[in-house]
Amino acid sequence: MWLNEPVKVLDTQAQAQAEARQTQLTKPAGSLGALERLAIRLAAMQGKHKPNMQQAWISVFAADHGLAETGVSAFPQQVTAQMVQNFISGGAAITVLARQHQAPFEVVDVGVKADFANQPGLVVDKVGYGTANALTQPAMTQAECQQALEVGKRAAERAVQAGASCFIGGEMGIANTASSSLLLACLMQTDIAPLVGAGTGLDSAGVQHKTDILQQVLAFHSSTLNQAQPLDILACVGGFEIAALAGAYLRCAQLGLPVLVDGVITTSAALVANAMAPQAKDWWIFSHLSVEPAHKIALDFLGVKPLLQLDLRLGEGSGAAIAWPLLQQACVLHNQMATFAEASVSSGA
Amino acid sequence: MWLNEPVKVLDTQAQAQAEARQTQLTKPAGSLGALERLAIRLAAMQGKHKPNMQQAWISVFAADHGLAETGVSAFPQQVTAQMVQNFISGGAAITVLARQHQAPFEVVDVGVKADFANQPGLVVDKVGYGTANALTQPAMTQAECQQALEVGKRAAERAVQAGASCFIGGEMGIANTASSSLLLACLMQTDIAPLVGAGTGLDSAGVQHKTDILQQVLAFHSSTLNQAQPLDILACVGGFEIAALAGAYLRCAQLGLPVLVDGVITTSAALVANAMAPQAKDWWIFSHLSVEPAHKIALDFLGVKPLLQLDLRLGEGSGAAIAWPLLQQACVLHNQMATFAEASVSSGA
Repeated sequence: MWLNEPVKVLDTQAQAQAEARQTQLTKPAGSLGALERLAIRLAAMQGKHKPNMQQAWISVFAADHGLAETGVSAFPQQVTAQMVQNFISGGAAITVLARQHQAPFEVVDVGVKADFANQPGLVVDKVGYGTANALTQPAMTQAECQQALEVGKRAAERAVQAGASCFIGGEMGIANTASSSLLLACLMQTDIAPLVGAGTGLDSAGVQHKTDILQQVLAFHSSTLNQAQPLDILACVGGFEIAALAGAYLRCAQLGLPVLVDGVITTSAALVANAMAPQAKDWWIFSHLSVEPAHKIALDFLGVKPLLQLDLRLGEGSGAAIAWPLLQQACVLHNQMATFAEASVSSGA
Repeated sequence: MWLNEPVKVLDTQAQAQAEARQTQLTKPAGSLGALERLAIRLAAMQGKHKPNMQQAWISVFAADHGLAETGVSAFPQQVTAQMVQNFISGGAAITVLARQHQAPFEVVDVGVKADFANQPGLVVDKVGYGTANALTQPAMTQAECQQALEVGKRAAERAVQAGASCFIGGEMGIANTASSSLLLACLMQTDIAPLVGAGTGLDSAGVQHKTDILQQVLAFHSSTLNQAQPLDILACVGGFEIAALAGAYLRCAQLGLPVLVDGVITTSAALVANAMAPQAKDWWIFSHLSVEPAHKIALDFLGVKPLLQLDLRLGEGSGAAIAWPLLQQACVLHNQMATFAEASVSSGA
């Protein structure tokens, strides 16, 4: 069973070498802050004292949610399929960013409530036509949940196969902040109300309605959710694209491919994977702090600090793509700066 | 007198067009946060509803400080000249970043206490061999101060001439956080102690010594500094490279070239220029919040919010260069994303 394979262990020798190198570069010690820490982490992941970030790989997982029927999103459900077409046609934010960064890009239909013509850039790996409405039944069966995790596993393996330096996962699915809030409440065992936000743009009445619905969902499934395992929670209130992301993040950690995590929905997938394999988060770099209120709570729960805080709340993997140049810059600074000895510069007192 | 020429007025029509365009792009309104605001600001600066950030220009101004004699830095004074050579040889952080971003790069010797052989990438535009020690006399004469401002003016004009989309100014000068703290205290009319930090790496005793020295400097010049004009303050306690930066920032605002401001020292130059021409800051984008405690105070004084917070404290323009890809990404997203109509995507409720 692939889910139980061990997470790759970080290379502490390469990490120590990178730490030592940072102290010798021509700058006051520590003065490149988060970029120094990034270079050192990437060295430990790649097992090289001079890590390289040559190419990001971007997989966006798209799926529909039965919960959309309950009016928890500001956008109609058909927007999921419309946006899949927009990703492929090149007009969506994440596609623009993929082009800008020359990153291989694919949209994975893991469960959209529509069919698409075969097109370059589209991977059809469908588990179903949207999840069931979690208000009245589990969102997925256990079998569907396993299949969706495997969709993510396959995407991670394609990225490794292509020689990617970093995996960026994105998501599209109308109502998926609702699913994300449900997952976070169950996994962190906290009240859901502080975890519910405006998503794509609900007003305060909309947020209240969303909160009411999500509380009903939790009440309906309370006997199942009480003391449930992570995968039971995922099947009960998750989404196909979130399960795929969890599978991808876990597989990246098993295979040793660094991950750039995006916003609140991808972080909820990370929490699922973290509950299954706590070491996996060594391989994940959190790109930004979203405006969605649940995101800070989830990041604090994981004990991680994101790189950026730019008031983003788009999803699609866009925040991770926006952070990608920081990883590249961290590496070129680490690799190409001269040491005090090389440059004949006096070091500090 | 060029210092009194008016700052270029922003194009409010292009700004309104860019604002309208942002609401039509295929994303929830506002979901790209700071990047939307950046694209709109750049549209207003460039007078185009689709702004472009093709090429950054980087000028690093280097000069020595008489105050270094008082032991206010963790590094010896000769490091200024050594780092100039390191900039030119390609081993310094800002040089690595300039290469990564394919940005034209120059080091401007505005007052280093050494002479350099003619080398590509070095501009010798020398006002003197370091400032005088402000503990016992004004750092510069009024004439030197004017000359240093003009050094920056010429750099801004070279950037415009080269067709740059954005001006990044950096600085190198052992003891220049001391000069920066003095300038900020005088311009904001506040106590200096909260504005004194570790600079390149002082311990707490070193910070205390630096604070004591800077208080003595302020006491020594109190009759001059009391109710002084910005240029009098600059001449009394500033540095050649800080004056050059102030001149460059002002000239960019006059000529309509967007500026990416770096850390605390460049921000102190911005405060000088802002005191001379308050509209100039419309043209300045603040790239990051430095670890130096004075930086947040100075940014709050200007009423501006930086893009990044990465625990940087290197200077050289490095933080601005690290933020440069955000400007590029803001523009390509703004320009290349499809509208709801173009992509046949339903807009929100």
